[in-house]
Amino acid sequence: MKWHTKITKVEPNHLITYGYKQEELIGNVPYPHVVYLLLKGELPSKEHGKMIDAILTSCIDHGVTPPSSIAARVVASGGVPLPTAVAAGILSIGDAHGGAIEKGAKFLQDGVKRMKRDNKTVEEIAKILVKECKERHERIPGFGHRVHTSDPRTKRLFVLADELKIAGEHTSLSKLIEKELEKKFDKKLPINVDGAISAIISDMHFDWRLGKAFFLLGRVAGLTAHVYEEQTKEKPMRKMFEIDYEYNGPQERKLP
Amino acid sequence: MKWHTKITKVEPNHLITYGYKQEELIGNVPYPHVVYLLLKGELPSKEHGKMIDAILTSCIDHGVTPPSSIAARVVASGGVPLPTAVAAGILSIGDAHGGAIEKGAKFLQDGVKRMKRDNKTVEEIAKILVKECKERHERIPGFGHRVHTSDPRTKRLFVLADELKIAGEHTSLSKLIEKELEKKFDKKLPINVDGAISAIISDMHFDWRLGKAFFLLGRVAGLTAHVYEEQTKEKPMRKMFEIDYEYNGPQERKLP
Amino acid sequence: MKWHTKITKVEPNHLITYGYKQEELIGNVPYPHVVYLLLKGELPSKEHGKMIDAILTSCIDHGVTPPSSIAARVVASGGVPLPTAVAAGILSIGDAHGGAIEKGAKFLQDGVKRMKRDNKTVEEIAKILVKECKERHERIPGFGHRVHTSDPRTKRLFVLADELKIAGEHTSLSKLIEKELEKKFDKKLPINVDGAISAIISDMHFDWRLGKAFFLLGRVAGLTAHVYEEQTKEKPMRKMFEIDYEYNGPQERKLP
Amino acid sequence: MKWHTKITKVEPNHLITYGYKQEELIGNVPYPHVVYLLLKGELPSKEHGKMIDAILTSCIDHGVTPPSSIAARVVASGGVPLPTAVAAGILSIGDAHGGAIEKGAKFLQDGVKRMKRDNKTVEEIAKILVKECKERHERIPGFGHRVHTSDPRTKRLFVLADELKIAGEHTSLSKLIEKELEKKFDKKLPINVDGAISAIISDMHFDWRLGKAFFLLGRVAGLTAHVYEEQTKEKPMRKMFEIDYEYNGPQERKLP
Repeated sequence: MKWHTKITKVEPNHLITYGYKQEELIGNVPYPHVVYLLLKGELPSKEHGKMIDAILTSCIDHGVTPPSSIAARVVASGGVPLPTAVAAGILSIGDAHGGAIEKGAKFLQDGVKRMKRDNKTVEEIAKILVKECKERHERIPGFGHRVHTSDPRTKRLFVLADELKIAGEHTSLSKLIEKELEKKFDKKLPINVDGAISAIISDMHFDWRLGKAFFLLGRVAGLTAHVYEEQTKEKPMRKMFEIDYEYNGPQERKLP
Repeated sequence: MKWHTKITKVEPNHLITYGYKQEELIGNVPYPHVVYLLLKGELPSKEHGKMIDAILTSCIDHGVTPPSSIAARVVASGGVPLPTAVAAGILSIGDAHGGAIEKGAKFLQDGVKRMKRDNKTVEEIAKILVKECKERHERIPGFGHRVHTSDPRTKRLFVLADELKIAGEHTSLSKLIEKELEKKFDKKLPINVDGAISAIISDMHFDWRLGKAFFLLGRVAGLTAHVYEEQTKEKPMRKMFEIDYEYNGPQERKLP
Repeated sequence: MKWHTKITKVEPNHLITYGYKQEELIGNVPYPHVVYLLLKGELPSKEHGKMIDAILTSCIDHGVTPPSSIAARVVASGGVPLPTAVAAGILSIGDAHGGAIEKGAKFLQDGVKRMKRDNKTVEEIAKILVKECKERHERIPGFGHRVHTSDPRTKRLFVLADELKIAGEHTSLSKLIEKELEKKFDKKLPINVDGAISAIISDMHFDWRLGKAFFLLGRVAGLTAHVYEEQTKEKPMRKMFEIDYEYNGPQERKLP
Repeated sequence: MKWHTKITKVEPNHLITYGYKQEELIGNVPYPHVVYLLLKGELPSKEHGKMIDAILTSCIDHGVTPPSSIAARVVASGGVPLPTAVAAGILSIGDAHGGAIEKGAKFLQDGVKRMKRDNKTVEEIAKILVKECKERHERIPGFGHRVHTSDPRTKRLFVLADELKIAGEHTSLSKLIEKELEKKFDKKLPINVDGAISAIISDMHFDWRLGKAFFLLGRVAGLTAHVYEEQTKEKPMRKMFEIDYEYNGPQERKLP
């Protein structure tokens, strides 16, 4: 029943994380680079470090309406400690909220693998994938957004990925899918911020299983701000919503 | 039932966080500075930005043994999504785990206020506070550690706070309390990493109510790494602990 | 580092909970009585068993609007497993949501202790307590409700507590406080369901620290129903609320 | 954006759950029957009511070692409110912990459907299913246990299901699979308590998607007892485990 961990060795007055003394990391290596270290086991190049910093910032907050913000604020409103309410927000990060990063990264990574195996070009594999999705009536994860038709975060992330020479096959595939979707469906389904992150972390060789982790690690800052605002500016148990609901259960009845 | 928020305005293709376009923050302002923005409403000076970066890194991880790591890994072991397990780790951040930052910051901020009100020197107020705690048999939050007698993170944070000219009255008070504790109790009770953070965020004029937030925002990275390691390197429901327990309830009995 | 537990002894093919074989409890002792056993260490009398059953049912659900229902449904909407969403609902049970049971029970238990110590009648202590609260501008926990002026659950619980001969000093004190509140404030502040439970569990000699536990143990059934309904009848990430919010942060500005 | 709910209608002084006034349910209908009502929309027959009561009790607790108990106690140890710690325990209920009820119920329900479609006997379908699992090197969920070779809860539940005339095709299939497993693998893989519940709730016509809900609704009582015991009998942040871990990350190194 021995445990094994590559993360941190703790001895009295001595803390080693992936080989580095914590006191040397502190203040010498930017925190987002340390996040990269924790997820990859190695410090990033300057370019990868800048990219992960940008990805974290791109996830910080989307205002009061996403499930995570509402969950965090509603739970805070019950009168609980700050970390309890922040955790409630994090619990809502699931297949439908932030999950497109994970699914999108898997989709792109599978696509690129298949492209290589079948000796296709990126253009060819993009066409094949969109065609298959159309036939199966499936959505490709990472395209389309409830609010934004041209998400400013997406554009910015792709510009950075180009500048930092990180954009590669996954990013290309993503952009070609966007074009192909417009052709095949005759409707714009722009890459959303989740889709952009999927492509870029894939080009940075991250495991798609970490997809939700990037969202979580950026969004936790916004959730903390929401909980703090709720706790310091609002009354507990304030009436937050006017829910217009219809009770469609059985009509009133007597006990049998 | 109107809501009010200072955090983020969301309009189609337009996201403003505390006045700044998110696409301008992304990749131009380091993520830890954005965290500061979210907690304070203003971007930090270069020095404050560097300091908050260092504070986040100082909280990243303390290996497999803290309650938060165990909670995260045990919950991961039940076979749940990554964010669910990370959130479980965050739930353990409470008065006894990370809570010393909050309580320590309140203690120091109250101390400095009282010093000014009563026209005392830092030395005088340190003596008064330690004397009172001794009389009341209370511990001062932020001093002493289960593992480290001379925590390398503490030293590093204080060096940085000096270099960045952030260290002020709260840091002085903290160091004088450490000396006074040794005199009065004849035993070293060194400032621990929570205590150092308490002092420094107080000198940065943060509300003590945010104490647990700094710990949470740094530690979430380590917890994510632990959950990912558990999910990818270990079997679900592995036997993690040999708990040596004594059942001291009623002896076996018949139903009445 | 030995653990001690009075709850359950586990040996191969042998499970003893507070002295009783689990296979003898199953189907012979009603589940609510087993809940009582877990909280008290002893099986209840027939009357106490019936009372705790009624208390659990009185907490099952209050529709879609309480923080716990919203948190559970919003988190479910993110696309997560059922237990994750139910847990999010439970997280919202705090000082302001369900917390009145705990605070109310403490208030009544302290009141009855003081009555005995100071040799007062229940009428006298009720007057003293209401007077003090009025002077301190404090609310007495367990009185008044956002929706109900005459909560049908409260009446029913008190009728049962009388029938089962459980109602005692704490229930009397609670009812006298209600009368006194009306006199002193010239406004009806009826005992709410939390207040009724506070009084009755106090007359059953439960520790007030368990106040939130009763609410949680009943409400978990309603939360499970809400999550199941959300997961099976609604689309993930459906638009649940029209939040009318005002952004009152800084006006749009350039990076410094 | 209208909501629809069959669960509870809330009007001033009037609460209707699945058609029944809450004040009529309280104390007249046993709480486990109300749980059934919340999950099914109808009150149970006397037999089904007794069965669900037994199922809830069969899940109450398995001592200090399961992930849910450890998560709850470890989080409690961080110094947080009772519901936060109970929720942490619930978060660990996943595919590997309690999940066998869900997967087992799906397996049996699919099996019985296939039996009918293909016009097979229960014996025949049991043989087919075990053969297929052997070929695919897959485990059938609900068989085998870490601790118990002959789980007393399993036996008791099956006896009750027989007595109450609830045991039907799913229970038969389950028992025949057990026999077939022993024949084919030459090793006893007894039905465990999760497996028994899978079979019985399937014979009660519950949706397999509710599998984890039954476990959760029973176990929440044990978790509450563990958290209360931890909070009242133990010190916060007590040393709970001696984790024997090997750090197998990179050797100590200098920053690049």
